[in-house]
Amino acid sequence: MENRRSFIKKAALAAGAIGSGMACSPETQKTSAHNATSEPIPTVIATWDNRKATQAGIEQLQNGGSALDAVEAGARVPEGDPNDMSVGYGGHPDRKGIVTLDACIMDHLGGAGSVTFLQGIKHPISVARKVMEETKHVMLSGQGALEFALAQGFQQENLLTEKAKTAWENWMAKQEAQLVNENNHDTIGILALDKEGHLCGACTTSGAAYKLHGRVGDSPILGAGMYVDGEIGGACATGLGELVMTTLGSFLIVELMRNGASPQQACEEAIGRIVKRYKNWVEEDKLQVGYLGLNLNGEYGYYSIRKGYSVAVAQNGENVKLESNFALG
Amino acid sequence: MENRRSFIKKAALAAGAIGSGMACSPETQKTSAHNATSEPIPTVIATWDNRKATQAGIEQLQNGGSALDAVEAGARVPEGDPNDMSVGYGGHPDRKGIVTLDACIMDHLGGAGSVTFLQGIKHPISVARKVMEETKHVMLSGQGALEFALAQGFQQENLLTEKAKTAWENWMAKQEAQLVNENNHDTIGILALDKEGHLCGACTTSGAAYKLHGRVGDSPILGAGMYVDGEIGGACATGLGELVMTTLGSFLIVELMRNGASPQQACEEAIGRIVKRYKNWVEEDKLQVGYLGLNLNGEYGYYSIRKGYSVAVAQNGENVKLESNFALG
Repeated sequence: MENRRSFIKKAALAAGAIGSGMACSPETQKTSAHNATSEPIPTVIATWDNRKATQAGIEQLQNGGSALDAVEAGARVPEGDPNDMSVGYGGHPDRKGIVTLDACIMDHLGGAGSVTFLQGIKHPISVARKVMEETKHVMLSGQGALEFALAQGFQQENLLTEKAKTAWENWMAKQEAQLVNENNHDTIGILALDKEGHLCGACTTSGAAYKLHGRVGDSPILGAGMYVDGEIGGACATGLGELVMTTLGSFLIVELMRNGASPQQACEEAIGRIVKRYKNWVEEDKLQVGYLGLNLNGEYGYYSIRKGYSVAVAQNGENVKLESNFALG
Repeated sequence: MENRRSFIKKAALAAGAIGSGMACSPETQKTSAHNATSEPIPTVIATWDNRKATQAGIEQLQNGGSALDAVEAGARVPEGDPNDMSVGYGGHPDRKGIVTLDACIMDHLGGAGSVTFLQGIKHPISVARKVMEETKHVMLSGQGALEFALAQGFQQENLLTEKAKTAWENWMAKQEAQLVNENNHDTIGILALDKEGHLCGACTTSGAAYKLHGRVGDSPILGAGMYVDGEIGGACATGLGELVMTTLGSFLIVELMRNGASPQQACEEAIGRIVKRYKNWVEEDKLQVGYLGLNLNGEYGYYSIRKGYSVAVAQNGENVKLESNFALG
C-alpha cells in the first residue's frame, strides 16, 4: 500500500509547490538579521534558549541535511537531556507520576506526523516523523502510538529521572497549583529553512507539570503548537497549551503572513488574540505563551504575553539567544 | 481551585464579548434561508443528513436550552444510535476491533473541551463538555480520558455491536483498503445559534473505519473538526480527518468570515486549499471532505470536495436535508 507521503510528494511536484526563496511579505522585518534575497539563508530557530538544539539543527544543514533532518535533530537535543525538565527524558510527570509526551513534525509539502500521550519512548519527535513517513495517518495516541513506535524499532524505557520524581513527590505533598508562567518554561518548538528554500517544523514536550493523566496540550497539534505552509512560512508556540489550542496561533501566524504581515506583526497579532479573549484568566494565573514565526526569506519574529520569553536563532554563522518583547507589563 | 471556565466567563463579561446578533459579514449569503436581522434566528445545522440530531437540538432551543445544550443534545443522537456506524455506539472499530472515540465541544466564550482515543463510553461529547466545565485543560486522551469520565460518573460499556463486529471480521478477511470517500460517511459536526446570539459547536466520531489503533482524526481538534468564535461564527468538518488536520479548515472558515467572507465563500476557499495542496492524494484515493459554516446572523454555507455530501438545517420551523455543491466532478 502506497503511503500518504508518496501521494503528497507527487501532488507537490505536480503543482510546482516547491518554492525557492519565494518572497511572501513585502515588509521589512525589524527583528530579522538580514533583508530579503533570492537565495534562501539557512536558518534554524527555536523557542527558549535552546541554542544546543539550533546548533544541532544548523550542523545538519551544513552537512547537507534537509530542513526536516534539522528540526528533528534539534528537537532530539532537549528530548534526550535529563536536565531539561519540560521535554522528553527527565520531563516533569503528570499528577500520577507518569511522564507522557506529545510531539509533531511537518514538512514543506504538507506532510505531517504527530504523537500524543506517548509513554516510555525517549524521542517522540522521531516517532512522529515515522507516523508521517510510514502511515496514511497524521496522529497516533497513547497505547496505539506506543505499539506503533515499538513496531518501528523504538525502545521502551523509564523516562522519570530521580530529580523529576523527587520534584513530583514534593509537589504531591503540597498539592500547590502549578501553572505555566514566567517561572515554568516548557516545550521546544523549532523551525528550519534549508538552502533549497524548504521550511519544516517540529515541536515536542512533556507537557504541563502535574497535569491530569491524559492531558494533551498544543504541542502535538498542527496549527496550534506548530504549523508550516511550504509556500509561506512556519510558526511554533510555547507556554500554556490550552490558550494556544483554542486560538490556533501557529496556523494564524502563517495565515497572517500569507496576507502580507511580517513574522513579527503576525506573532504580535496572535498574542493579542489570546490576551483579548482570555484576559482575566491570563492575568489571574500569570499565564505565559510565546510565539515564533519564520518566512521563506529567513525573516523571523517572536513575541510573548509577558516578560521572560526568549528564542534561539542560528543564522549567518551566529547562534544567539534573543529576549522577546511582550504584551503585558 | 477555580476552574478554567469561571475565568473565561469573567473575562468575557469584562470584555463585553457576549454579542447579540452581531453582524460579521456584509454580504448576502445565497444559501441562507433569511437575510441579516438584529434578532438572532435560532438555528441548528449539522453535517450529513443528521435531521434527527438537528431536531433534538432545535427542540432544546425551543425549550429554553442554550446553544451549548443544543449541540450536545444533537451530537448525542448519532452517538447513541447503533445503526450509525461512524459515531459512538455501533461505530466501526479500528484495525484491532476496538471502538475508539473522539469528540470536542466549544462555546461562544472560548471555553472548550475535547476527548481523544476514548474507549467504552457511549457519549464522548458529554465527557468533552465535562472536560470544559470541570478542568483547566482542553484535551484528555486515552486511559486518562476514561479515568476522568468514570470519575465524573459515566458508565463503561461495550460499544462494539454485532453488526460492526461482523463488518470488521469481513474486512479483516479481505484487508481491503478503507478510505473516506463518497461511500463511507462519517462524523457529525453540529453548530447551534440561540436567541441570545450565542453560537456553539460540537463534533463527535468513531473515526475512520479500521484505522490504526490509536489514530486520532480531526474531529476532537479545535480548529480542525470544529471551531467557534463567539464574535464571528463557527464551522465544522467531516470526511478524511488527515486532510482537515493539516489545513485547519474550521479555523480557516471562521477567520475568512472575520475578514468579510460569507459562510459559503469561506467553505469553498477551505475546500480549495485542500484540493490545491493534496490534489494527487485526493484524486487517487477519491477522498472526501465536507465543511459547514454558520455566522451570527444565522447565515450558513456548505461545500465539499466531491458529490454526495449533504447537511441538515433546522431553522424557521423547518428541518431539511440539503445537497452540497462540490469542487471536483
